[in-house]
Amino acid sequence: MAASIYPDYPPDLTSEQSAYLLSNVKDWSILNGLAVRPSLSFVPKEVDPSRSLAVTAPVTLFPSLFPRRCFEEARAIQTAYNELYALIARDEEWLREIIEELVEVDDFIANLWNVHLEVKKVGYVQSLSLGIFRSDYMVHKDPSQPDSNPEIKQVEFNTIASSFGGLAAKVSGLHSHLLSISAYPSTVPTLITKSFLPSNPSIASISQGLATAHRAYAPSKSHPPLPLCIVFVVQDPENNVFDQHALGSTLLADHNILTFRLPFSATLAYTSIPSDNPSRPLIYKPPHSPSTAYEVTTLYFRAGYAPTEYNSSESWNARLHLERSAAIKCPTILTHLAGSKKIQQVLTTPSSPHLERFLSSTSSAEYINRVRATFAAIYPLDDTAAGKHAIGIATDAGKASGYVLKPQREGGGNNIYGLKIPPFIKSLGEDGKKYRGHILMELIEPPALRNSVFRNGGVTSGEVIGELGVYGVCLWHYGEEVAGPKILENWEAGFLLRTKGRRKAKKEA
Amino acid sequence: MAASIYPDYPPDLTSEQSAYLLSNVKDWSILNGLAVRPSLSFVPKEVDPSRSLAVTAPVTLFPSLFPRRCFEEARAIQTAYNELYALIARDEEWLREIIEELVEVDDFIANLWNVHLEVKKVGYVQSLSLGIFRSDYMVHKDPSQPDSNPEIKQVEFNTIASSFGGLAAKVSGLHSHLLSISAYPSTVPTLITKSFLPSNPSIASISQGLATAHRAYAPSKSHPPLPLCIVFVVQDPENNVFDQHALGSTLLADHNILTFRLPFSATLAYTSIPSDNPSRPLIYKPPHSPSTAYEVTTLYFRAGYAPTEYNSSESWNARLHLERSAAIKCPTILTHLAGSKKIQQVLTTPSSPHLERFLSSTSSAEYINRVRATFAAIYPLDDTAAGKHAIGIATDAGKASGYVLKPQREGGGNNIYGLKIPPFIKSLGEDGKKYRGHILMELIEPPALRNSVFRNGGVTSGEVIGELGVYGVCLWHYGEEVAGPKILENWEAGFLLRTKGRRKAKKEA
Repeated sequence: MAASIYPDYPPDLTSEQSAYLLSNVKDWSILNGLAVRPSLSFVPKEVDPSRSLAVTAPVTLFPSLFPRRCFEEARAIQTAYNELYALIARDEEWLREIIEELVEVDDFIANLWNVHLEVKKVGYVQSLSLGIFRSDYMVHKDPSQPDSNPEIKQVEFNTIASSFGGLAAKVSGLHSHLLSISAYPSTVPTLITKSFLPSNPSIASISQGLATAHRAYAPSKSHPPLPLCIVFVVQDPENNVFDQHALGSTLLADHNILTFRLPFSATLAYTSIPSDNPSRPLIYKPPHSPSTAYEVTTLYFRAGYAPTEYNSSESWNARLHLERSAAIKCPTILTHLAGSKKIQQVLTTPSSPHLERFLSSTSSAEYINRVRATFAAIYPLDDTAAGKHAIGIATDAGKASGYVLKPQREGGGNNIYGLKIPPFIKSLGEDGKKYRGHILMELIEPPALRNSVFRNGGVTSGEVIGELGVYGVCLWHYGEEVAGPKILENWEAGFLLRTKGRRKAKKEA
Repeated sequence: MAASIYPDYPPDLTSEQSAYLLSNVKDWSILNGLAVRPSLSFVPKEVDPSRSLAVTAPVTLFPSLFPRRCFEEARAIQTAYNELYALIARDEEWLREIIEELVEVDDFIANLWNVHLEVKKVGYVQSLSLGIFRSDYMVHKDPSQPDSNPEIKQVEFNTIASSFGGLAAKVSGLHSHLLSISAYPSTVPTLITKSFLPSNPSIASISQGLATAHRAYAPSKSHPPLPLCIVFVVQDPENNVFDQHALGSTLLADHNILTFRLPFSATLAYTSIPSDNPSRPLIYKPPHSPSTAYEVTTLYFRAGYAPTEYNSSESWNARLHLERSAAIKCPTILTHLAGSKKIQQVLTTPSSPHLERFLSSTSSAEYINRVRATFAAIYPLDDTAAGKHAIGIATDAGKASGYVLKPQREGGGNNIYGLKIPPFIKSLGEDGKKYRGHILMELIEPPALRNSVFRNGGVTSGEVIGELGVYGVCLWHYGEEVAGPKILENWEAGFLLRTKGRRKAKKEA
């Protein structure tokens, strides 16, 4: 769409323009922490055994074009999406019906559900739940209606480890900086201007969410009271560390809240729940200062979303241990499960009553319909009429090319595209039981745009597609027994404009 | 000194404490632009041909100890030093007597002086001069007076390319951050506290100096008027680029002043002085936007101080071209020359009248004596009684060990230490003429301290010596004909606490 309106975007640069732009991208990014640790394929381990080097995070050299109306609509409905998923996560019965169907075919989902059941047995001690969400969209334009307006269609809704909020605001800052130093040639004056580059509050706004949970937890449940902290549960090693530190440093600077990074694999070793305290505070004794005990108000999971992270029964013990503690989880197991693709498919089923069920008490029919308008066509692979129709597509090489097959887990790394679907379906076994672990989604075919991406020290130019992620923060009460409002805080928290090659794997959600 | 009072500083760390400290040093530094481009010996060119990688700038893991009284005294007398060197740079006659003696023996000095004479012929068109200075000190304690207080002794006074002001403030920030996240074990509570970690205004204060010159230049001298900018004259390649960018980005963010980086070798190609404008504005047409002309208010030299940068007559033409323009130079040729070691030696000559000559109209005798108290013993190598005495030392292997021989140029890279002096002196030739290109300085022997330095991804621990640099900003009128005060602005501008191995070369001043 945008490509057809602005076929000359981005402009061709002279070698001097290109050198100036690139040199400023390289320098501004490092000056401002818009960085990642380089991959081992870029910098071999023997060059930098202590992993001290950094490099500019992958960025586009030019601001990504995105239809303004679509951009604003996605941000305008984020609080409805926040509320929807918060209320789903609160509704164990509704979730159970859907999840139990997956439990038979997906071990990872089964294990997560089991953690919830185990904690339920002993009772949850923390009724507050924090969501830091990201709803991802692509622009869709109905090819059969050339005069129609472009619309956003939701790719997925992330309920755990929604990443890049700590870098996205800096990408906006980078493009604004490049504009202010005239690094963009004036041949596209109407496109790259201050008013076309909205500021991005993602760092401040997501940090504010964590701070709000932290304050809602207080005071300490320990006797005598302990100093409070937030723990970021992280992967190890992690290249995307500066994205996470942008939040941690804002929590310290703006909210005076101490955060610690703790690898998921080390949570059992360094955290404990005193057996004599029925409130079950989660106590963290940092390895560098084992004599100092902190009480964890909030567990911010930037790990624990991938099945590969659970490589032993210890891993599941760790998740259970954390879930049963009094720390506010971002997310809880139920919130994590609410992000399953199956939930998205159930919500989007034509004429399903679910959206109204969850939102009608707070939202107008018109607002609910704006949410519904973002639904892409998603099908189950089961015995229903829609499911049989979808299995027909997924097993037919002549029809599968316009679709993507997705497993339940977060992140796009395991998606199967187009013609690869039929042989994959075949590999799941003849009885069709394992089909249910997946959903089939019509591919959103966004307009191809051109841009240049700087990654690993090199520039790649060509056709790209844009994906808009909108962050949301929501704090809610889990139990029915709590008086007062269910949703305590709910706001839209900035955005991520991502540029992708088609069908490219994502590492983190 | 400090070592004897605090022999256990820095504390020994457990491996967990060390890992926590180091991990936070590595991450905070990149998050905040406390970085350099890695050297080619660390990252071979083939790994990163586009030079996109960055690494933590060399820093101590623990705050450097420095006697507080000495630290405060050095900062308190900085404005006197600023004034002293500004007034020296204004006093062409006084300078000429000293410099002409060097012209015979030092080509670099001769060429600089010649640039001044050439500009003088056509007349200077800019009466304002900006100094961004750094006065470097070590702590000295008289070994024959064990009960005496430690004192600061000046190592050198930098009048060109005084570097690291853009990183030094961040080092202070890093150590404060490490303290605030309890990365320092509490075994040294009385040493590392907020009050022991003074905040460092170097970035804001040096940027303010450049901004002040920029505003003092305005309005444009071109017809029609041109947009104004500051040009950083830089080396290429430059690893210390983030130090410089910290100033440029502050100028843009806090003062709305555009800066450009221009390699010294490219100044002739991209700047010009319109022949029909007697005001001689310096016009910069950026290579990335040759149709846009800017007028340069201020030339900030971060290059042009080393003889090796002048490898052709073009280089000297470039320096002359810049000097004759209307841009405010930081520094002018005369200010650059005022930083010669010979000037320092002349000032420090016992019972010399020079300090009073320059300072007595504005400073009390007591204040002047505080400046004089920072002088180390420095000798000429000439026909005077002091010079003959010094030649006797410099040629005698039995006496030379407590001395350092320095050429006139900025920076310590060409210094000759101790027992290497006599053979070097011999290599200068028997007639002694070239001796005069050098000064002989008694080595300041500061107390050895212990610290750990993080550099190129590795930690080195051991005995180090500390050097304190104090930045100063000064803006003054050059010509006698200007009415009103000679010194327009004068302030102390933050500090650099540097940790060195003994007798280690410096690359930039």
